[in-house]
Amino acid sequence: MTDLILTTYDWVPPPPRGFVRDLRIRWALEEAGLPYRVESTPFRDRGPDHLAHQPFAQVPWLTDGDLSLFESGAVLLHLGQKSTALMPGDASGRAQVTQWAFAALNSVEVPVISFVFLRFSGEGPDSAALGAIGRFLDLRLDRMEAVLADRAWLTGSFSVADILMADVLRVIGPEGLGGDARLDAYPACRAYVDRATARPAFRKAHADQLAHFAAAD
Amino acid sequence: MTDLILTTYDWVPPPPRGFVRDLRIRWALEEAGLPYRVESTPFRDRGPDHLAHQPFAQVPWLTDGDLSLFESGAVLLHLGQKSTALMPGDASGRAQVTQWAFAALNSVEVPVISFVFLRFSGEGPDSAALGAIGRFLDLRLDRMEAVLADRAWLTGSFSVADILMADVLRVIGPEGLGGDARLDAYPACRAYVDRATARPAFRKAHADQLAHFAAAD
Repeated sequence: MTDLILTTYDWVPPPPRGFVRDLRIRWALEEAGLPYRVESTPFRDRGPDHLAHQPFAQVPWLTDGDLSLFESGAVLLHLGQKSTALMPGDASGRAQVTQWAFAALNSVEVPVISFVFLRFSGEGPDSAALGAIGRFLDLRLDRMEAVLADRAWLTGSFSVADILMADVLRVIGPEGLGGDARLDAYPACRAYVDRATARPAFRKAHADQLAHFAAAD
Repeated sequence: MTDLILTTYDWVPPPPRGFVRDLRIRWALEEAGLPYRVESTPFRDRGPDHLAHQPFAQVPWLTDGDLSLFESGAVLLHLGQKSTALMPGDASGRAQVTQWAFAALNSVEVPVISFVFLRFSGEGPDSAALGAIGRFLDLRLDRMEAVLADRAWLTGSFSVADILMADVLRVIGPEGLGGDARLDAYPACRAYVDRATARPAFRKAHADQLAHFAAAD
């Protein structure tokens, strides 16, 4: 098997450490026990070579032989085909995982990103815009709370869909970037994130990302 | 082959007509010439049966035999496996289409939805929040402009990734919901949307959606 190569920034400022999206890929690779190595691309100088791999000048991307893939959702579905620890092998199971992967990144992450973005843009707690996005986010969390009330994982067993959903939801948790531990009002969502982030593969991925960026300080 | 069943609302108010996400599915089904029928679920009363198919109380969902799928991205990748008019048959081609499907729904649609949402929430042209989200959106459009400058479609040929990206981008075009024809500042993006929406399959899907909702007025 060709070695998988995960590329992330060489360094990022402290606030996003632990939340850069290479974590999702590290997590999946650790869950599946797939061999990989991590390479770096400059954070401060994002040139044509970076754009050739990731046209939005972001990270991560994965190299698998001749294939170079960006978008964490696409990378995780690609890895899911390599291990049933990440995605079931049958067509119906794969479709369900794909469905929840998109749900994490479109139905749920849209208001999460907008909420965090407006916070970092300087919108204060009295901001009408932040309030409106917060209500949009709560609509989604209300529904996720119902979904997660009666199941441990989104599909029959842990999958890349859970990696994505848990990584999206923890942003608004007590140690997240959202600034208000909003997730505490949703006990099933909070328990789901706790359950997911207690997995050894998450803990290793998280520690490895922190160490990677700290090494460049 | 089992008939495919696409479910959408029985009615919506005029503003979103032509933009409800069943359009993406209709478009793909028309491109591939797959037989399907459209069923309705109440817009005003979204009960447990609706939530069993679409846990966020939205539309559309697709029924394919025993499989019921929501999330337009997941539905389009599922349909892509049925026709090379929608997605190439080789693994590398499928991975590239998947990558751009996620790019449309996460990298690009996040600021598009946030922008339109804040507009509809009553944020005026002087809103700092709307300005910040607008700059976020422009960052993405700058990058899409570079991507689309030298290619007709996102991957080697037209695919479901183009259905998703064009449907996301047209929201901020001159006939879109964004309210400012922002896309006109990005000529390659604008030409791409024009090219995509000139396809007979889009035009039929669009006309069929308008007729579906108008029939319930």
